[in-house]
Amino acid sequence: MEYVFSDRVQSLKPSAIREIFKYAADPTVVSLSAGNPAPEAFPTKEIAEISAKLLSENPIAALQYSITEGYAPLKATLTEYMKKNHNVGTDDDDILITSGAQQIMDLASKSILNEGDVVICENPSFIGSLNTFRSYNARLVGVPVEKDGMNTEKLEEALKNEPRAKFIYTIPNFQNPSGVTMSLEKRKAVYELAKKYGVLIIEDNPYGDLRFRGEFLPCIKSFDTEGIVIYSGSFSKVISPGMRVGYAIAPKPIIQKMVVCKQGQDVHTNIWSQIVCNEFITKYDFDAHLAKLREIYRKKAGLAMDLLDEHLAPNITYNKIDGGLFIWCDLPEYVDVASFCMDAVKNKVCVVPGTAFMANPEDVTHSFRINFSTPTDEQLKKGIEILGQMAKKL
Amino acid sequence: MEYVFSDRVQSLKPSAIREIFKYAADPTVVSLSAGNPAPEAFPTKEIAEISAKLLSENPIAALQYSITEGYAPLKATLTEYMKKNHNVGTDDDDILITSGAQQIMDLASKSILNEGDVVICENPSFIGSLNTFRSYNARLVGVPVEKDGMNTEKLEEALKNEPRAKFIYTIPNFQNPSGVTMSLEKRKAVYELAKKYGVLIIEDNPYGDLRFRGEFLPCIKSFDTEGIVIYSGSFSKVISPGMRVGYAIAPKPIIQKMVVCKQGQDVHTNIWSQIVCNEFITKYDFDAHLAKLREIYRKKAGLAMDLLDEHLAPNITYNKIDGGLFIWCDLPEYVDVASFCMDAVKNKVCVVPGTAFMANPEDVTHSFRINFSTPTDEQLKKGIEILGQMAKKL
Repeated sequence: MEYVFSDRVQSLKPSAIREIFKYAADPTVVSLSAGNPAPEAFPTKEIAEISAKLLSENPIAALQYSITEGYAPLKATLTEYMKKNHNVGTDDDDILITSGAQQIMDLASKSILNEGDVVICENPSFIGSLNTFRSYNARLVGVPVEKDGMNTEKLEEALKNEPRAKFIYTIPNFQNPSGVTMSLEKRKAVYELAKKYGVLIIEDNPYGDLRFRGEFLPCIKSFDTEGIVIYSGSFSKVISPGMRVGYAIAPKPIIQKMVVCKQGQDVHTNIWSQIVCNEFITKYDFDAHLAKLREIYRKKAGLAMDLLDEHLAPNITYNKIDGGLFIWCDLPEYVDVASFCMDAVKNKVCVVPGTAFMANPEDVTHSFRINFSTPTDEQLKKGIEILGQMAKKL
Repeated sequence: MEYVFSDRVQSLKPSAIREIFKYAADPTVVSLSAGNPAPEAFPTKEIAEISAKLLSENPIAALQYSITEGYAPLKATLTEYMKKNHNVGTDDDDILITSGAQQIMDLASKSILNEGDVVICENPSFIGSLNTFRSYNARLVGVPVEKDGMNTEKLEEALKNEPRAKFIYTIPNFQNPSGVTMSLEKRKAVYELAKKYGVLIIEDNPYGDLRFRGEFLPCIKSFDTEGIVIYSGSFSKVISPGMRVGYAIAPKPIIQKMVVCKQGQDVHTNIWSQIVCNEFITKYDFDAHLAKLREIYRKKAGLAMDLLDEHLAPNITYNKIDGGLFIWCDLPEYVDVASFCMDAVKNKVCVVPGTAFMANPEDVTHSFRINFSTPTDEQLKKGIEILGQMAKKL
């Protein structure tokens, strides 16, 4: 049998990160390539307590079919939490619980994009989302990320030139992979441009709670008087990614279409995990838990940046970060990043070449991404020392 | 903002069943419209034990990111189990753990169907799958279901007339909604026809283990020397639907594409639940558990059929079943099934009109579906008595 696949998946390949993960699985290789929460960041005791109580007192609720929209008490908890803490959500919005925030990218794409439509994204951007957009045969138009977020002049140029643009995809806080946080001015500018050109915004905010320094900035969704922003939230970085629980807050007509698509995709999100998330947020001290996470990552990020200062300067530079899980390192322009990362693996440290995160294959980058949340402090030291030795030889 | 949705979801509506469920939520209405496992069918004690042990001994494994293909030990368990018990799976096949079997329909559709391609399905068939095919703008061609499965002459006719047919969708065991089990001869005939016309088969088998009478028949996938069958398995009816764990066994090139699509859809299936399923199958007596389920449903189905015999004859007839969760009841041809079901709701019993399961809106049916797994024995009695009173007045 010769298999004929759909046009949309003909050219789809497993992500470059997955290929790199194969090297990272070698226990002699120090992996700075993942994006997993630190093992000490999981509220394991609390989850075990909640789950034991749930399965003893109300097991059928946790194990039976549930509804596509999500567990009603969790929806209510998040609606209130996001309104109170982030001014996110209006009476014209609704909320949908999803199987991780990744599913929001899929459901939004499926609901909004025809084949050949355009998604405007930061360049570089999160490869998982870009691949989802690609899987609907969307064309990606990248807008360069600067120290304070996407270049809004280039964004307007893209919006002018691309009548088929349907949405702007942005990660305003501690962007993956660049680590950049968008300034308040640019958040407002992006919103105004989307409004002016009649396109939607997907605001992806998995790392927003992981700010360990500086002032929290308002979400773009908090400006959303027009109903043009799809807000994407996730428990993957603050409770557990293995549970796969995320949530979209968006205008009701968009949520309605996403619900219909979700019904055909997985019926509903694992209800056991939805209940556990809700119990954790409402019955435990969620704010104290977030403060603990910020402290864990403040220390780890601080160590990583100290090591980068010590070992990589002056040949390799990087952007200081205020939160999130990633640091973006820049090689000199005469160095090919793919070869550098391949050499790094041979030297037993694994980082992700920036090329993996670019909107289009022809987009040039000389940067690579390192993650500091997954490795132990010892691994971080060892990995960055190896990179330092390589930096000296450039 | 006026929202413009993709062509594929413009006409998608929430399923008719969902609308009916709204009535079913009224506690004074007896619901025979669901498809939930009986509450007594859940291995709640075992799940609680397994989960407690897991979260105490290896919590990070249950809560951290995992890989898209699925939990390796569960894949190995299922590969061996399906080979040994059902002769399903060859060296050319691979297995993918999914977020319920519903996701298999989505991933297969996304991988295989271009817009306008044709899916040949039994008529009637499971609305959840049909809606997924529709969500990729596939055209559905229905083949009538007879007492021993789909009419294979009509199937061949459809295959001849539809050069854009990409796969045949079938539920060979205790089909939802008709309750029909496909004969061995027809299983072979369907396989040979698919081979002859170069199309794939999706064999959806959520109820296969729930046979309470008669001989188990081989899966179509067990004939699959050509690599043309995508087998869809699920734990929803035998462990827990709330966990959302299913599995596809299919030729490697197809699984590869489905994995890439799944990566962009939800990254991986809830890993906590995957581990729990694997521990339950391997460390407990899974066969004894299945035997217990068969006994629960043998009793409930027996009661339902006795009640139908007593109350609905001769005006309403039905197909005797040997397993599964559903019974298909036929009204006289002069009765409009939609009105009948609406009257039933007014009389406080909720059943699903057959129209919800038809491939196309113009396909005529005079049947409705009842479910016997979810209601208590008392509810079954009350519900079927009400239907009986309505039958007498026809």
